[in-house]
Amino acid sequence: MSALLSPLHVSEVLPRLLRRLRPAPVSLPDSVARQIPRIIDPVASLPPVRRLASTMMINYYAYATSLRPRALTLERDYTTWATLTDRSFTGRHLPPADPRTMATLPSERDVTALFRREREVRSTDTSVWFMFFAQWFTDSFLRTSRTDFRQNTSTQEIDLCQIYGLGPEQTLMLRSMDRGRLKSQLIDGEEFPVFLFQERAPGGPLAFKPEFHGLYDERFVIDTILGGAPEDRKDSVFAVGLEHGNSTIGSTILNTVFVREHNRVAGLLLAEHADWDDDRLFETTRNVMIVLLLKLVVEDYIRHIGPFDFPIETVPLIADEERWNRPNWIAIEFNLLYRWHSLVPDAIGAGADALGPGDFLNNNPLVISQGVDALVSRLSRERAGRIGLGNTPAFLVDRSDPDSPSLEERSVALMRKARLRSFNDYRASYGLPRMTGFAQLTSDVALRERLESLYDHDIDRLEWYVGIFAEDYPDYLMMGELLTTMVANDAFTQALTNPLLSRNVFNEDTFSAGGMKVISETGSLEQIVVRNSTSPGTVHASFEC
Amino acid sequence: MSALLSPLHVSEVLPRLLRRLRPAPVSLPDSVARQIPRIIDPVASLPPVRRLASTMMINYYAYATSLRPRALTLERDYTTWATLTDRSFTGRHLPPADPRTMATLPSERDVTALFRREREVRSTDTSVWFMFFAQWFTDSFLRTSRTDFRQNTSTQEIDLCQIYGLGPEQTLMLRSMDRGRLKSQLIDGEEFPVFLFQERAPGGPLAFKPEFHGLYDERFVIDTILGGAPEDRKDSVFAVGLEHGNSTIGSTILNTVFVREHNRVAGLLLAEHADWDDDRLFETTRNVMIVLLLKLVVEDYIRHIGPFDFPIETVPLIADEERWNRPNWIAIEFNLLYRWHSLVPDAIGAGADALGPGDFLNNNPLVISQGVDALVSRLSRERAGRIGLGNTPAFLVDRSDPDSPSLEERSVALMRKARLRSFNDYRASYGLPRMTGFAQLTSDVALRERLESLYDHDIDRLEWYVGIFAEDYPDYLMMGELLTTMVANDAFTQALTNPLLSRNVFNEDTFSAGGMKVISETGSLEQIVVRNSTSPGTVHASFEC
Repeated sequence: MSALLSPLHVSEVLPRLLRRLRPAPVSLPDSVARQIPRIIDPVASLPPVRRLASTMMINYYAYATSLRPRALTLERDYTTWATLTDRSFTGRHLPPADPRTMATLPSERDVTALFRREREVRSTDTSVWFMFFAQWFTDSFLRTSRTDFRQNTSTQEIDLCQIYGLGPEQTLMLRSMDRGRLKSQLIDGEEFPVFLFQERAPGGPLAFKPEFHGLYDERFVIDTILGGAPEDRKDSVFAVGLEHGNSTIGSTILNTVFVREHNRVAGLLLAEHADWDDDRLFETTRNVMIVLLLKLVVEDYIRHIGPFDFPIETVPLIADEERWNRPNWIAIEFNLLYRWHSLVPDAIGAGADALGPGDFLNNNPLVISQGVDALVSRLSRERAGRIGLGNTPAFLVDRSDPDSPSLEERSVALMRKARLRSFNDYRASYGLPRMTGFAQLTSDVALRERLESLYDHDIDRLEWYVGIFAEDYPDYLMMGELLTTMVANDAFTQALTNPLLSRNVFNEDTFSAGGMKVISETGSLEQIVVRNSTSPGTVHASFEC
Repeated sequence: MSALLSPLHVSEVLPRLLRRLRPAPVSLPDSVARQIPRIIDPVASLPPVRRLASTMMINYYAYATSLRPRALTLERDYTTWATLTDRSFTGRHLPPADPRTMATLPSERDVTALFRREREVRSTDTSVWFMFFAQWFTDSFLRTSRTDFRQNTSTQEIDLCQIYGLGPEQTLMLRSMDRGRLKSQLIDGEEFPVFLFQERAPGGPLAFKPEFHGLYDERFVIDTILGGAPEDRKDSVFAVGLEHGNSTIGSTILNTVFVREHNRVAGLLLAEHADWDDDRLFETTRNVMIVLLLKLVVEDYIRHIGPFDFPIETVPLIADEERWNRPNWIAIEFNLLYRWHSLVPDAIGAGADALGPGDFLNNNPLVISQGVDALVSRLSRERAGRIGLGNTPAFLVDRSDPDSPSLEERSVALMRKARLRSFNDYRASYGLPRMTGFAQLTSDVALRERLESLYDHDIDRLEWYVGIFAEDYPDYLMMGELLTTMVANDAFTQALTNPLLSRNVFNEDTFSAGGMKVISETGSLEQIVVRNSTSPGTVHASFEC
């Protein structure tokens, strides 16, 4: 009977009731807020409490807005068979805004300027390691097409394509075809992915190794991604799953750590199943690895994003019972709301060994020379920037080339091309009360006046992409309420729907007994870093600092 | 509160309870069974009763077995990322049988022989029109690849690709690009699709019109599908969505009727929205058409398959609340169980104008000369064969070309290559009690002895593909209990998950007010035939006869 009655479970109904009965935005005095983790942590360490609270939290956010499938995509402003089935086009949560409203908005230039960092503000407890993880993680599914802004070239799944590539041909290129392992090399005793480029005479032309032809667009990698990189850093670019996999020291480190973990798990499975061939070892290891990523995303990464760092659990089979379990379809709002450029600090560290943008972009030699352990520990101790307006570093807002828009300009332009509805319309569609004035949005008087001037003192005219970053938030959150709700909604309903987590799949047949054990014992990225470290006693990898 | 409490609704829990508490196969004396429709029909005409009973019936079958996603496909015998995501490979409900068991099975030749018609038996109340509809309908999603038996080249959706083609390029070829219409022509005042082939000198080589290059494989259509057809029938092949769209008079008629209805609805929408361009008229009409097909499949076609022809309703938004709402993935069992070759009669009609297989295969001139109305009425009055063993016409069992396997031989070979588990294993996985002997399977003594001899008197060795067609059934069903359960399970959980039926899509924005009206007023194929008829007063189109 328990299986029959599970839909009646409090875990679905109560969160939906709570959302409806919700009186006002949560607002706690800091003195009270600071006590809450001290109350939560011991209680949440009880498994039944953690499971029930996690289920309720997941459902609270998952049911925050109407469910997929949605009628429209960026392909068309009316419903067609393609807007319902062709996932190469980016989805959208809400229908487009009226063009007449769009015509009266402030200039893109003025909006972009709102993001420019005037005075650097660091977060209260978020590490630069978190920032690099967020970028590495989202680069795998927020893949705006370079030829058509309406399209997303991702698979729509969290599939660890960062190390496995986007399709079966790419996966084959990255495999060693031996004992289920991925290609790797040892450099000074540390394991790294193999190099992407052929050896060349100093300063000679770059070319992919023949084995990597078709891994991704060769000209784009060489001319665009590496276009501005120092020549002596290019030869150590690694062959990984995605084009941007070497763009920051964080992406390089994360790809390296996950390749190491893949090969470690493949070794465990070989010890357990001496009769398995390379294919079976590879595929089963991959199944395990994708679930490890999903678990740490929920239990480590989203935990840090959520209120009070509640120790949320990846509740087994939760999606199986829920109406929010619908095919993934990345929405334009998810793509845009994840542009947390203000996390980027002006520099990592201080003094002679401080790392500026030129040091943490396209710099595999730094990772190789300092090693993964030392860098991860350093990035985990350094605070990221605080998410919000007026805190994006100049190099992401201003043009380095006068003919090429900056990253923030491109974001604002994309938001406008997607014709998104207002901040208040999105609040309403996520079950939050509409704001009635800018004073509810922010207590920063200068910012408030600037926004009131840009939006004619009418909070209903405030653009969503501006509002989510303008919204005040307390220390126990790391972004505003609408942004928290929207990111949690899309994250939970697209991570926990992974087929590997479903009832007929999440078992030893899929992962092997050894793989299930690895899964059940892993809940944080630090565990994975440590077990693949050459100095496990000293390495530190944390999203909180 | 009602929306909050809907998961508690009796409509989900009660059918699941009924399945668990289910004591034994339903068995009623014919005298009682005959009374049941007289009781059901007046009561079921009350809308709330019809809705509740329909919801319970749909959920009874939809929850009959474990839900998608399933771990395996025909691609691999262990779970990989591809078996979970690559829908080009056919799915499977149960894991493969043990090869040692497979090795002891009777020869394929002996199994094929079980299907051969010895004495023609007609159904009690199923028309030949039903048979043609079943073939036309399933040809659109059961598309076994010609190069790899493990693959299915369908879109996995009920999308009326029979008239719209399999992809956007094909759809464009079939559109007139004017007022939202599909290409059509008038022949003697009746509307038909346009011809596929270029005009040719008598007996000259066939070639697609240039506008249809790429519609489908030209050589396959000309050499294989039309290979054995009389030369004088080939010039009137119509350009429709699928390769096999002209293979029987039924497919030709159904494509013609749906093209007519598309163009009729496009005209209604144009009258309602004079400002809409061709694209919008076409896309909105297509949305309406797909839902018309879904509605008549449930309310006309499945109604006839189900017990007592209960007037089942396409309950609005039913899938929205249900856990069986998971992405479609056609399974090999669904592909095989639908091979209702025994429906095919030796001849349609009697005497001089009887139609033998040579008359109803590849015969568009017959459709054009007799007209849709006369033929549909005739097919609706003629009984199809009874579904079961020993009733498949010889031309589908025996080879016409000694080097080319017959249709039934290919079915048996596919069942073996897919390594399906036993009949009893499938009964158990669909919540039905395992049979303990062949006497429970069939009261036909000769057949029972033949099966006992082939399967060593061990009911647990009986193959699924044989068992589903061997199982006795009462007159109020049209196939055995396991076959009924499996076809209903796959049909409901893959038709009602169509995105056009979902909460955010099923509305006037998607269909227009006029389109919604057409949808709400249509529940049978006969309605569509009649409103596109030149003799609406006399035409008769019914699955029951």
